[in-house]
Amino acid sequence: MKSDIKLDVYLVTDRELSRGRSIDEIVTAAVKGGATIVQLREKFASTRDFIQTAERLKMILKPYNVPLIINDRVDVALAVDADGVHIGQDDMPYDIARRLLGPHKIIGLSVESIRDARDAEALDVDYLGVSPIYFTPTKTDLKRQLGLAGLHKIRSFSRHRLVAIGGLNVSNAAEAIQSGADGVAVVSAICSADNPQAAASELATIVKKIKQVMP
Amino acid sequence: MKSDIKLDVYLVTDRELSRGRSIDEIVTAAVKGGATIVQLREKFASTRDFIQTAERLKMILKPYNVPLIINDRVDVALAVDADGVHIGQDDMPYDIARRLLGPHKIIGLSVESIRDARDAEALDVDYLGVSPIYFTPTKTDLKRQLGLAGLHKIRSFSRHRLVAIGGLNVSNAAEAIQSGADGVAVVSAICSADNPQAAASELATIVKKIKQVMP
Repeated sequence: MKSDIKLDVYLVTDRELSRGRSIDEIVTAAVKGGATIVQLREKFASTRDFIQTAERLKMILKPYNVPLIINDRVDVALAVDADGVHIGQDDMPYDIARRLLGPHKIIGLSVESIRDARDAEALDVDYLGVSPIYFTPTKTDLKRQLGLAGLHKIRSFSRHRLVAIGGLNVSNAAEAIQSGADGVAVVSAICSADNPQAAASELATIVKKIKQVMP
Repeated sequence: MKSDIKLDVYLVTDRELSRGRSIDEIVTAAVKGGATIVQLREKFASTRDFIQTAERLKMILKPYNVPLIINDRVDVALAVDADGVHIGQDDMPYDIARRLLGPHKIIGLSVESIRDARDAEALDVDYLGVSPIYFTPTKTDLKRQLGLAGLHKIRSFSRHRLVAIGGLNVSNAAEAIQSGADGVAVVSAICSADNPQAAASELATIVKKIKQVMP
């Protein structure tokens, strides 16, 4: 487990939503703007392409000291010695992922219900991705919207750090932090932005400001 | 590397071609019939489902002492402690797979050209999957047909054991072995057979018979 990771602005990549720009370009802009952690998500790439992209992002992120998280694929994370993985409820069970990655890698887990979050109390995950806060075109396989109320509820009992995900952008990031999130995860708010660097910067400013005034 | 694996009848699973029967059912029938090695290939399953299927197959195969090979996914192989992986040219590079799996696991590599096979001379793979011998509806991403001539050519210089794959069945298995293959890999010839056990048995008999009369 790592307790020092900064979850403020958590970029999740998406090739399809990047409007023709490369993942490298989006990620470079995002970290220049202030993204604090980056998750590479590749739903259709071959394993070889996934590894090659991960290797490039690792090089891009290194000077910024921003961790690279791999979505789902523990093999890709091991291949490039990434900082960690993010797993969903349909991915590798947490205990196996921890065994394969060892105690020092970051493992984040998606929770999509109060029950998922309660189950996660038994796990030494590094953070929970709480979703969906709002509905979003990025994920089409989610049944229920947890909303800010769900996030607030999970915050009330969970021992884990929480990242809010699902439909978040500059207009609603503040309320997610106020409802208990340690950071906001965004896909299109950065990947599809006219200016991804400015979008990341604006999000970083909002999150920092709200955290300063919170008790 | 493992030199004692029996490649005679190499089943590659395919959910879509199994005519509504479960993978467990097909694999059980195949090993009862005489399949000597089984590769679990799952192109659309979630990581969790892939792992669960692999765990079930491992239990099915154990009493037959038939190795379980995982297609592409080194993470799944590590998760269930499978006997090895089969990687293609778009999958994890061999050197990384070997580093992650260690020296004792089976690693098979697909070669789709004479050049691929020449490149593989430098690698300590356990076998090469030589494809396609014939065209087949199972793989739609192959450009050229290597044919029996290509197989024969690769046999003339390769230090590796060879498994022929692509359009093989009881009617042409003999010529693949005669052209230098150590075994035949089949998908639909077993998965789609009316009687998968009988199909595996017939293939095993053919391969054994040809090997006996070969110099």
